[in-house]
Amino acid sequence: MAKEKLVKAITSMDEDFAKWYTDVCIKAELIDYASVKGCMIIRPYGYAIWELIQSQMDKMFKDTGHENVYMPLFIPESLLQKEKDHVEGFAPEVAWVTHGGSEELEERLCVRPTSETLFCDHFKNIVHSYRDLPKLYNQWCSVVRWEKTTRPFLRSREFLWQEGHTLHSTAEEAKLETERMHKIYADFAENVLAMPVVMGKKTDKERFAGAEATYTIEALMHDGKALQSGTSHYFGDGFSKAFDVTFMDKENKLVHPFQTSWGTTTRLIGAVIMTHGDDSGLVLPPAIAPIQTVIVPIASHKEGVLPKANEVYTKLKSVCRVKLDDSEQSPGWKFAEYEMKGVPLRLELGPRDIENNCCVLVRRDNGEKVTVSLDELETKVPELLKAVQDGLYNKALARRAEMTYDAHDMDEMIDIANNKAGFIRAMWCGDRECEDKLKEMTGVTSRCIPFDEENLSDKCVCCGKPAKHMLYWGKAY
Amino acid sequence: MAKEKLVKAITSMDEDFAKWYTDVCIKAELIDYASVKGCMIIRPYGYAIWELIQSQMDKMFKDTGHENVYMPLFIPESLLQKEKDHVEGFAPEVAWVTHGGSEELEERLCVRPTSETLFCDHFKNIVHSYRDLPKLYNQWCSVVRWEKTTRPFLRSREFLWQEGHTLHSTAEEAKLETERMHKIYADFAENVLAMPVVMGKKTDKERFAGAEATYTIEALMHDGKALQSGTSHYFGDGFSKAFDVTFMDKENKLVHPFQTSWGTTTRLIGAVIMTHGDDSGLVLPPAIAPIQTVIVPIASHKEGVLPKANEVYTKLKSVCRVKLDDSEQSPGWKFAEYEMKGVPLRLELGPRDIENNCCVLVRRDNGEKVTVSLDELETKVPELLKAVQDGLYNKALARRAEMTYDAHDMDEMIDIANNKAGFIRAMWCGDRECEDKLKEMTGVTSRCIPFDEENLSDKCVCCGKPAKHMLYWGKAY
Repeated sequence: MAKEKLVKAITSMDEDFAKWYTDVCIKAELIDYASVKGCMIIRPYGYAIWELIQSQMDKMFKDTGHENVYMPLFIPESLLQKEKDHVEGFAPEVAWVTHGGSEELEERLCVRPTSETLFCDHFKNIVHSYRDLPKLYNQWCSVVRWEKTTRPFLRSREFLWQEGHTLHSTAEEAKLETERMHKIYADFAENVLAMPVVMGKKTDKERFAGAEATYTIEALMHDGKALQSGTSHYFGDGFSKAFDVTFMDKENKLVHPFQTSWGTTTRLIGAVIMTHGDDSGLVLPPAIAPIQTVIVPIASHKEGVLPKANEVYTKLKSVCRVKLDDSEQSPGWKFAEYEMKGVPLRLELGPRDIENNCCVLVRRDNGEKVTVSLDELETKVPELLKAVQDGLYNKALARRAEMTYDAHDMDEMIDIANNKAGFIRAMWCGDRECEDKLKEMTGVTSRCIPFDEENLSDKCVCCGKPAKHMLYWGKAY
Repeated sequence: MAKEKLVKAITSMDEDFAKWYTDVCIKAELIDYASVKGCMIIRPYGYAIWELIQSQMDKMFKDTGHENVYMPLFIPESLLQKEKDHVEGFAPEVAWVTHGGSEELEERLCVRPTSETLFCDHFKNIVHSYRDLPKLYNQWCSVVRWEKTTRPFLRSREFLWQEGHTLHSTAEEAKLETERMHKIYADFAENVLAMPVVMGKKTDKERFAGAEATYTIEALMHDGKALQSGTSHYFGDGFSKAFDVTFMDKENKLVHPFQTSWGTTTRLIGAVIMTHGDDSGLVLPPAIAPIQTVIVPIASHKEGVLPKANEVYTKLKSVCRVKLDDSEQSPGWKFAEYEMKGVPLRLELGPRDIENNCCVLVRRDNGEKVTVSLDELETKVPELLKAVQDGLYNKALARRAEMTYDAHDMDEMIDIANNKAGFIRAMWCGDRECEDKLKEMTGVTSRCIPFDEENLSDKCVCCGKPAKHMLYWGKAY
C-alpha cells in the first residue's frame, strides 16, 4: 500500500508547507488553538513529547551540577528597567498586569519574557562571598512575549521553556559555562532529537539583548528555512553591575561576579516536526516518542490473536514504550493513525504470524518491513529503534548537506537566496554595514559564525575587503 | 549535646509560631522573598522537595490513567464570566493583563487563578461522541490569586500546583472520579508526607465556586490550626451547560457530560513544615527529603577518614539520596546545618569508628543514635529511613488525637475555641444559619463533614434541633 493512501488528512509539503505544518500539529493531536489569540493548548500527545524532552535534558543539567529553582511570574517595571539594553530588547513585547482584583497596582508588573532581572535581584540577596559561587541554576516555566505573528511551537505568545542562569567568580569560568551549555544543547539536538545542528556564535547584531556573546545551535528545516533551536549567552559583569551584585573575593576585595544564561523551548517540538516529518505526518525520533512501538492486531476477532498480542505487549513493556491498540477500528485505520502520529515502529500480528511464531515490524522512517520471530522481539525491537534514531539523523544530515550552498560574491548570494532554499555560507569582513546590506539585498539573515569555519575565499562577499569570518545565512523562522 | 544548642538561628515555636515558620522557610533555604510583594522564590532545596512531591504524585495520576496537558496562562474576561458562581468566586482576586507591549488589549485577560473555564472551552472542541470520553487530564503549572495577606507556601499571590480536570459521560462516573482522587490525595498525604488527614466533604458554604460537591483533606498543624491540603470537586453538568459542551451518547442523543476538578499546591510544603518541624527547624519525611542521609566525617584531616567516607558514600548511593559534606566547616556546624534542614539521618564517621568498622547514625525525628557496622549499612539505612517515616506519621497522629476536642453544646464549643488549639468536633443540624452563627460565636470555621462521622449527640450544638452530621471545626490557615 503506498504511503499517500494511508494518511489523507495531511496537506502535502510541496503543496503548502505552512498548511502541512499546522495539519501535523492539529491532526496528530499535538495542540489545539486556545481562545486567547497566539496561545496554544498542548494536548496529551504533544505534552508527552515535551515531558520526554524535559526529563532527558533535565538529567543533563543535573549531571553537570545545576539545580532547579522557581522564580516569580511577574517582574516589576522598575526591575525590568535596570539593564538598559535588556529592557529595550524586551519592553515592546511584554504583557503588562495593571490591576489586582478591582484595584489598580501602584506599579505595573510585566509577565516574565525571560528572568535575568529576577535572578540578578535574587543573586544580590544570596551571594556575598566567593564561597557562595558558582550558582548554577535552572528553571522550567512558561514565558510570555507579545508577538504579532504566531505559529504553534515556533512562535507563540506564551511558550514553555527552561532558562539556565549562572553566576561565577571569574569571566573565564562564566565563558566556559556558556560554552559547556552550548555543547549540551548540540549534544541533545543531535543525539536525542536526531537533528543535526550548526554550532556557532551570533554576530553582534543578532546577539541577545544585554549579552556580550550569544552562542546558538541552528537547524535546517525541510523547507530550507533555518531554525534557531537553543542559545547560550555570556553576560560579562554587565548585569551584575546594573543590579549591584557583588561578592568578597579571596583577596578580600568587593567585586562583581560574571553571569550566563541559556534557554531552549517548546520550539524544539516544532523543530522535530519540520526536520523529520513527511507527507504522512509526524515522524518521531524514538528517544522522544511517547509510543515507540504500536502493536496492531490483525483479524483480532480470530481466536488467539488478542491473547498473543497481549503477551507480546507484556514482553515489550520492559524494553520500550509500547501501546497495544485493541480498539474496534480497522487495521487500516490504525496504520494511518499511528503513521500520522509518527510512531517509530508498527508491529503487525495476525493469525498466520502467530502460526509461524513471528510478527511483522514496519519502520516509520523508511517503510521497511521485517519479519521477526516472537522469541527475538526483546532484542530486535530495541535494535530497530536504534536504527530508526540513527536513520533519521543521517537522513537529516544528508539533506542539510544537499541544501547548503556556498556564495563567493554578492551576485551568487542573491542568486542562491532567490532560487534555492537552504543555508548559504559566505565570507564576511565583520562589519555591521555589510551584514545589514546583505540582509537587505538577499532577504536572508545571518545565522551564526560557525565553529567549523572554512576559508571559502579571502574577501567579504559584500564589500570585497579582507574577510574575517565565514557566516551562515538563512531565511529565519 | 542538647538540641537547642545545635540550631540557634530558629525562633522557638512557643515564643512565636509565625516567626518560627518564616525562620524555617528562610534559614533552611526553602525560599527567598521576591521583589513582587506576596510572591516567593523557591530555592534549590525547596524546589527539590517540590520535585519529589511532583514525581511521586504524578506517578499516582498516570497509574490511574490520567494524562498531562498544558493550557494557556491567560483567560479572556468573557470566558471567565461564562459560569456565574465561578466568576463571582474568583474575579475579586485575579490579576488583569491590560496591555501587550505598548498597545491596550481589546479584551482584558486574567492570569489563570484556576483553569476550569479553559478546560471547558477545550473540551467543547475535542469532545463529540461518548467514544471521546472520559477525558482524564491534569496539568502542573503556576496560578495567581491576588491575596491581601500572604505567607510563604501557605498563601502567596503566585503558587505552583497541579489541577486535574476530567470529563465523563455519566454523573455516577464523575462522582467516582471525584472520590478516587480524594483518596489518592489522602493516600499521598499519609504515606508520602507522613501527615494524617481528616477526609470529608465541605459544607455548601465552604464549597468551591461553581462545584456541586467539594471533598477535602484537612491536616492539623503544630499550632493547632487546620490546613486544607487538597480538594476534589464534583461539578455535575453545570460547567458543561454554561460552556455548551455536548456529546452524542450511545443512544444517539446529544447530552452534556459531567465534570470534576482536583488540586494540590506548594502549600503541601508548608503543611510538612508545620506538621513535622520542631525548634531546631525542618524535619523532612524521608520520602520527600532531597538528602535522606548526610555523611559528616569527624576529624577528616586524619588519614583514612575522607577515603572511607567516600567509600560509604558510594555504597549508600544505591539505596538512598545521600550527601557527603566534606567541606571545611566544623562537624558541629554541619550537625546544626543538616538538623535545621531536616535531613532524616546523619551518619558520623571518625577515626575510631573506622578502626571498629562502624559508624554512628542519628535520627532527626527523635535524636536516637545507633552504632552500625559498615558492612550492614545498605540494609540498616533503609530500615532507619522507614522507621523515621513511620515515626513521623505516628507522632503527628498522636498529636492530632491529643488536640481534637468534642463539643456537646455551644458553651463548650466557645470554651474550647477560646482556650484550646486544635480540631473541634460537634454535631450540626445541617443549616447554613447555624454554621454562620457558630463561626461568629467561636471564631472557627467548619472544615468538613468527615467520612468517619460519629454520633456525639442527637442535637445540633447551635440550635438544639436534630443533628444531621458531625462537623470538624478549626482555625483556618
